Amino acid sequence: MTKKFVYSFNEGNAGMKSLLGGKGANLAEMTNHSINVPGGFTITTEGCNAYRAGNGSYPDGLWDQTLEAIKALETSGKGFGNSDNPLLVSVRSGAAISMPGMMDTILNLGLNSETVEGLAKRSGDCRFALDCYRRLIQMFGDVVLGVPMKLFDELLESKKKEKGCQLDTDLDEIALSELVDEYLQLVKTKTGKDFPSKPREQLDLAIKAVFDSWDNKRAAKYRLLNSIPHDIGTAVNIQSMVFGNIGMNSGTGVAFTRDPSTGEREFFGEYLINAQGEDVVAGIRTPKPINQMEQDMPERFEELKQVYQTLENHYRDIQDFEFTIESGVLFILQTRNGKRTAQAAVKSAVDMVNEGLITKEEAILRMEPAQLDQLLHPMFDPKAERNVIARGLKASPGAASGKVVFDSDRAVLLAEDTDEKVILVRTETSPEDIHGMHVSKGILTARGGMTSHAAVVARGMGKSCVAGCEKINVNENERYFQVNNVKMSNSQTHDIQVKEGDWISIDGSTGEVMLGKLPTIEAKIGGEFDTLMSWADEFRTMNVKANAEVPKEVQIAKDFGAHGIGLARTEHMFFGDDRLPWMQRMVMATDLEERKEALARLLPMQRKDFEDIFTIMDGLPVIIRLLDPPLHEFLPKEEEDIQELAKTLGMDAQNIQDTIDQLKEFNPMLGFRGCRLGVVYPEINEMQARAIFEAGLNVLEKGIKPVIQIEVPLVGKVNEFTMIKEIVDKVATELNVSGKLDYQVGTMIEVPRAALTADTIAREADFLSFGTNDLTQMTCGFSRDDSAKFLGRYVKEGIYATGPFQSIDKEGVGYLMRICVEKARSVKPDIEIGICGEHGGDPESVKFCHHLGLNDVSCSPFRVPIARLAAAQAALEQSI
Amino acid sequence: MTKKFVYSFNEGNAGMKSLLGGKGANLAEMTNHSINVPGGFTITTEGCNAYRAGNGSYPDGLWDQTLEAIKALETSGKGFGNSDNPLLVSVRSGAAISMPGMMDTILNLGLNSETVEGLAKRSGDCRFALDCYRRLIQMFGDVVLGVPMKLFDELLESKKKEKGCQLDTDLDEIALSELVDEYLQLVKTKTGKDFPSKPREQLDLAIKAVFDSWDNKRAAKYRLLNSIPHDIGTAVNIQSMVFGNIGMNSGTGVAFTRDPSTGEREFFGEYLINAQGEDVVAGIRTPKPINQMEQDMPERFEELKQVYQTLENHYRDIQDFEFTIESGVLFILQTRNGKRTAQAAVKSAVDMVNEGLITKEEAILRMEPAQLDQLLHPMFDPKAERNVIARGLKASPGAASGKVVFDSDRAVLLAEDTDEKVILVRTETSPEDIHGMHVSKGILTARGGMTSHAAVVARGMGKSCVAGCEKINVNENERYFQVNNVKMSNSQTHDIQVKEGDWISIDGSTGEVMLGKLPTIEAKIGGEFDTLMSWADEFRTMNVKANAEVPKEVQIAKDFGAHGIGLARTEHMFFGDDRLPWMQRMVMATDLEERKEALARLLPMQRKDFEDIFTIMDGLPVIIRLLDPPLHEFLPKEEEDIQELAKTLGMDAQNIQDTIDQLKEFNPMLGFRGCRLGVVYPEINEMQARAIFEAGLNVLEKGIKPVIQIEVPLVGKVNEFTMIKEIVDKVATELNVSGKLDYQVGTMIEVPRAALTADTIAREADFLSFGTNDLTQMTCGFSRDDSAKFLGRYVKEGIYATGPFQSIDKEGVGYLMRICVEKARSVKPDIEIGICGEHGGDPESVKFCHHLGLNDVSCSPFRVPIARLAAAQAALEQSI
Repeated sequence: MTKKFVYSFNEGNAGMKSLLGGKGANLAEMTNHSINVPGGFTITTEGCNAYRAGNGSYPDGLWDQTLEAIKALETSGKGFGNSDNPLLVSVRSGAAISMPGMMDTILNLGLNSETVEGLAKRSGDCRFALDCYRRLIQMFGDVVLGVPMKLFDELLESKKKEKGCQLDTDLDEIALSELVDEYLQLVKTKTGKDFPSKPREQLDLAIKAVFDSWDNKRAAKYRLLNSIPHDIGTAVNIQSMVFGNIGMNSGTGVAFTRDPSTGEREFFGEYLINAQGEDVVAGIRTPKPINQMEQDMPERFEELKQVYQTLENHYRDIQDFEFTIESGVLFILQTRNGKRTAQAAVKSAVDMVNEGLITKEEAILRMEPAQLDQLLHPMFDPKAERNVIARGLKASPGAASGKVVFDSDRAVLLAEDTDEKVILVRTETSPEDIHGMHVSKGILTARGGMTSHAAVVARGMGKSCVAGCEKINVNENERYFQVNNVKMSNSQTHDIQVKEGDWISIDGSTGEVMLGKLPTIEAKIGGEFDTLMSWADEFRTMNVKANAEVPKEVQIAKDFGAHGIGLARTEHMFFGDDRLPWMQRMVMATDLEERKEALARLLPMQRKDFEDIFTIMDGLPVIIRLLDPPLHEFLPKEEEDIQELAKTLGMDAQNIQDTIDQLKEFNPMLGFRGCRLGVVYPEINEMQARAIFEAGLNVLEKGIKPVIQIEVPLVGKVNEFTMIKEIVDKVATELNVSGKLDYQVGTMIEVPRAALTADTIAREADFLSFGTNDLTQMTCGFSRDDSAKFLGRYVKEGIYATGPFQSIDKEGVGYLMRICVEKARSVKPDIEIGICGEHGGDPESVKFCHHLGLNDVSCSPFRVPIARLAAAQAALEQSI
Repeated sequence: MTKKFVYSFNEGNAGMKSLLGGKGANLAEMTNHSINVPGGFTITTEGCNAYRAGNGSYPDGLWDQTLEAIKALETSGKGFGNSDNPLLVSVRSGAAISMPGMMDTILNLGLNSETVEGLAKRSGDCRFALDCYRRLIQMFGDVVLGVPMKLFDELLESKKKEKGCQLDTDLDEIALSELVDEYLQLVKTKTGKDFPSKPREQLDLAIKAVFDSWDNKRAAKYRLLNSIPHDIGTAVNIQSMVFGNIGMNSGTGVAFTRDPSTGEREFFGEYLINAQGEDVVAGIRTPKPINQMEQDMPERFEELKQVYQTLENHYRDIQDFEFTIESGVLFILQTRNGKRTAQAAVKSAVDMVNEGLITKEEAILRMEPAQLDQLLHPMFDPKAERNVIARGLKASPGAASGKVVFDSDRAVLLAEDTDEKVILVRTETSPEDIHGMHVSKGILTARGGMTSHAAVVARGMGKSCVAGCEKINVNENERYFQVNNVKMSNSQTHDIQVKEGDWISIDGSTGEVMLGKLPTIEAKIGGEFDTLMSWADEFRTMNVKANAEVPKEVQIAKDFGAHGIGLARTEHMFFGDDRLPWMQRMVMATDLEERKEALARLLPMQRKDFEDIFTIMDGLPVIIRLLDPPLHEFLPKEEEDIQELAKTLGMDAQNIQDTIDQLKEFNPMLGFRGCRLGVVYPEINEMQARAIFEAGLNVLEKGIKPVIQIEVPLVGKVNEFTMIKEIVDKVATELNVSGKLDYQVGTMIEVPRAALTADTIAREADFLSFGTNDLTQMTCGFSRDDSAKFLGRYVKEGIYATGPFQSIDKEGVGYLMRICVEKARSVKPDIEIGICGEHGGDPESVKFCHHLGLNDVSCSPFRVPIARLAAAQAALEQSI
């Protein structure tokens, strides 16, 4: 007995993916759930592998079984090659894992110069039949016979020119008939043979082309990069073609089981009578709303409503399905989970739980965490036209329109004094731009990656940001930016200059930069969103905290459900106008006395900051990181700013320049920063510890419970940590906090060495927190400020699947994190370990952290809901 | 029965260190080998611990046993407290591990106002007796009674002033007698009690002071930093004082068993009749050569020669010992292995093997590898006076004198045209200084650490270099450098300005910078050195290779015994005058064509370089690293150089400036360099591979056997490696090398990620080589260019015992290396793994690499002998 290589759609099911491929298994699944799919069958992946093993000849039985299956499709008088009533089929590849690079689809197989007449007669549309034939020759010629598509296109274009046509659809019967002849001639010239006219020959060649495409270079490379085994093979799906354009009791349409914009439980879609799907796509006729079908074709409409119920009950999700009615018979061509807006996703998931269709767990698991961003930020009206002039990185989501400004002082002037909406445009931002960023609606930079200063700060503020938009050339002095070779709607390219005061719009969710002012829709959450998030909280085991230090953002974090602050960056507090000069005086100090004097002026301001944070986060933990950045970040860069500082401090400008030169570093990332500052200038950390404890004592008197965790940055070796901890403990003793305030002292894990020696560090530290930005920089050797130059290329070449600053590089950085967790817990099993890098807001990374056994993740306030959801999903996925 | 807490010197031996401490065990060892040590005994570490456990009271038996042991010392009519013939003793601490911070020594215990008369009578020197007494009060007052030393010094100073004396030794009997009274009064005022006059009370208090000093803060901190257990305690040694100044049949001296300068087997030393050791130290009398004693005291001289034989036979090494003759009796006070020059170390070790005194293994093990440096580089005449004006890092050993120049072009001009010796002085050097460094005798920089450009290149060239000499302010424009607050020989401080053309001398072995021209002694090796190195090669299991690419240095490496080239840095080849413009054109290229054109010009030059290396290293492996540094390193920095380049390339200067700006990086260390260049511009590596293979084929025709290993730098993920390997393999195929040339393609391990994923990398790579400079930078988060600012402080504070760029940080970087080796060997057990960072020349690191199981180490040519020795030591130490 020969092996079974061919399965009719009613012989398979969704569980047979590895044998039938994804597409075949899905068609079988529908068929077996009483959904009227056009008849067809699948040649198995085993067939493919036997063919490949046989060096291009079919295994015994495959071809015979195929012909038998074709025969089974010859219903209602149709016959494969029957010139009166031809059966046409499609041939599609379908591997177990969907894979670009392989042959995709050939339609209308079975047409030739005779059967095309039959199709013309049946459809009553000769032009349509010829067009089907033309398409077959073109598709088949390209993918099966290897005649370059370009050559077909050239013939098509010259035909259009010859006939004075604009669109393909303008070509009439005669033109198409000529074109078919020219196509056939082209094939003959290029291949030395006639185009195969026998349907069986067409079928044979098409099946072999699908099989062969498994081994083509692009597909092989894709498998290599994605670790897909080479030996699983592809299946081939062969299906009857059905036509919606053969009379008034035929038609075609697309429908959603619920409204994909709102999630409302309404039958939603469009249809056309006596039409093919292409007609809708080509925009020749305007489709009607689905409900109107109730009048036009009441029986079919009832049937369709039945299908809609069947589909939702079976797939338990919003379905987006295509249908065709051929001579009064309703066929479902395909169904898939419907793409939806974030709002619809949330509403439908919650509704379906309430309807009893799905469980809470399923509702949580089916949400795309990153999609929640749409709900948390304003967006542009989807209907508005977008004049895109450049694209950058989707650095911080949300829509913003405003007048362009090129420096932060001016941004403040315009925004605060004249109440204008502004967009800050800079080559790159630095900590000195914080005040300008605060008042802007959005930020656009020409340089820097997903973790550049602009991106990180904007996300923290919940402001829209497009970063690393390399196409814009910013001239900050002349106050304009230029974009060259912009393709305009008239298809021509222009160089565009945008001057200060011009309106632009930026979409941080897509990375687009647009001319003009686009209408925005404000974010709104609540209702179903809150319900869904409360369910997420039931399941997740990790705490979600926020990276924030400015009271406004701390409050937002709290409102978004943050369970405390996972990272308060104290240096962000030193950039205010009232503080920066004192910070600068501290940096410029030539001896301990001067330094202490400046620090004494900063103490009360810093204390006030902490009081505010403690008050908002009453009873919740607050991790405060001691001063981290290199001191030169606090000093001015421009000549005029140096002059001004000299005046403010009553110093010689040359002196300031000398200090700047002296502090200059080749690789500041790996320089004099973090706890190294505290080792050399203990008085800085001493002041900070004092501010923290005094703030704690002060709020305590008001009945507020501060939960203090002090964090030492950039520790590489335990001695550094213990040195700083001693400073903190000394201050605590001096202030006599014992019995009043509890506090912990822990450390960031951001230097690879710290992760490698986490056991010795964990013996001394109360908690650990992964700073995965720096950890990634050092582990992978990528400067996040510079890597945009090549990381894009790296992701494109598949060296990294996603940028390691976007999602944790599990194999490398992740492995180091695992070593750290294991070593730390080996000496202190209960030690609290968290993450506070940018990755804390990336769903994939959050899940990875869950699997590592971390206690909490911390991210920017606007990503807190995303992290809550991702954490719940991780817990649920693990328990499955 | 009470426990035994007291051991007489003749009851112990060298093996009893943990009970008797190091000093006590050694005194016992000598006593038991018939060496006449002044009598004494040791109170055990157990006694100390029992005392500490008893909160400061002696355990049962300790005091009684001490008094008994004192009684045993009362020989030859001496008595403890006997005013006629007093027994005096010293009290010294002595832990098992020598430890700073603890109480050290009190001499002359047993003196008081009565016994001092007895000492005066016996010695016939009343002044001497009073001075002994004064010293006792001072030492005892300070360390036992806690009266600050400063106060004693003040009294001493004012006494000298009062008496018009310059030196302590100018004080006469009367003055000393007055001083003793004043000292006694000081003690009474400060402590409220009389100075303890009873010898037993003195002894009791002194023993307790030693015990207590174990727990003082400095000692406790030292133990913490050096991982010495807190509970091992210290022993106390009590020993009879002997005096060499009580008559003409008394005397004192110091002797070496062999000449410590040359290693010749000659009895060597100095002595004085009727004198104490202090007389020699104070320089009052000039000692005589030891051989003259044969006339002066023939019997004692014979006895001394006997001792010399006994000591060398027993300790089997050059001994440096002190002796005192008291009334005709010869006492040996202490003996230790004699410090010696490198030359003496080599000669004596080889001689002793030939004499049958030690084995080859012992000869190898007793060499200090770092000391070999002295033999390989010129040194200053040790007798020359040094006007040290500043100190920097000992960046590259050797002595150099020359005229100061401040830029490389001028250095070439002076050195080549006028044949002047020059020292290149720069704030820091860059690759553009290579030609200037080549012609200079030595290099002095104000910035940069042990692995800065200047340091690395100088070591490679074997040139003296003092780097990171922060005290010098270099004004390159005005052509001078300034050193402020230099302490001159007249004890005053001056600011010194050194102008171009002034002579200076730098000592790269000490880090000293001196004014003027010092006489140098050239290095010479051969003879015993070669013998010793050949023995080392018998024992070592690791290969030693060299980091070199310039033919001259490759030849030196070969002469120093390098087993091939472990790292040829191809970029060093691009800085020649004939090449740099083409390299710059390559960097400036705006498209592939331009880039390829420039590369085509570089190809023949690079090929020639490889031919030279292969020829010298005929039959030995050569690892060639593909281009590594960021491209901006090849572009000029100064405005005028940019103008010149614009002229050379026929380009617009603004264009060049734009490229420079575009290539500028925030953290170039972590930027666009290494294999990232090859991923983005494959044509660069393609040219290099072509040059390598063509060179290989060319030398093959001349009967030379090239052993080619191509190395991909900065790999973090295996895909990067395979991409570059594909380029190399493609070129090899094109050139049809198969069957003619064997080659391997391997990678550096310098990015932590590569070490963490070494298993996946080892599957593809033929060999691995640790680049520990970069690996340390990234693992510890230290930029080697910037870390001088705080790393000095770090080492001083004990955070790192030695700088991690100097010696491998075993706990952190070393642990990562261990992970790498284990992972790599888990998939490819025989994979060749080496090290080519600067650590390859550091003996400690070489030993660590041996223990990791590496196959080879590679270092700068001048350190090859050091590495050979260290590798042999590691193998021997392991086999013990």
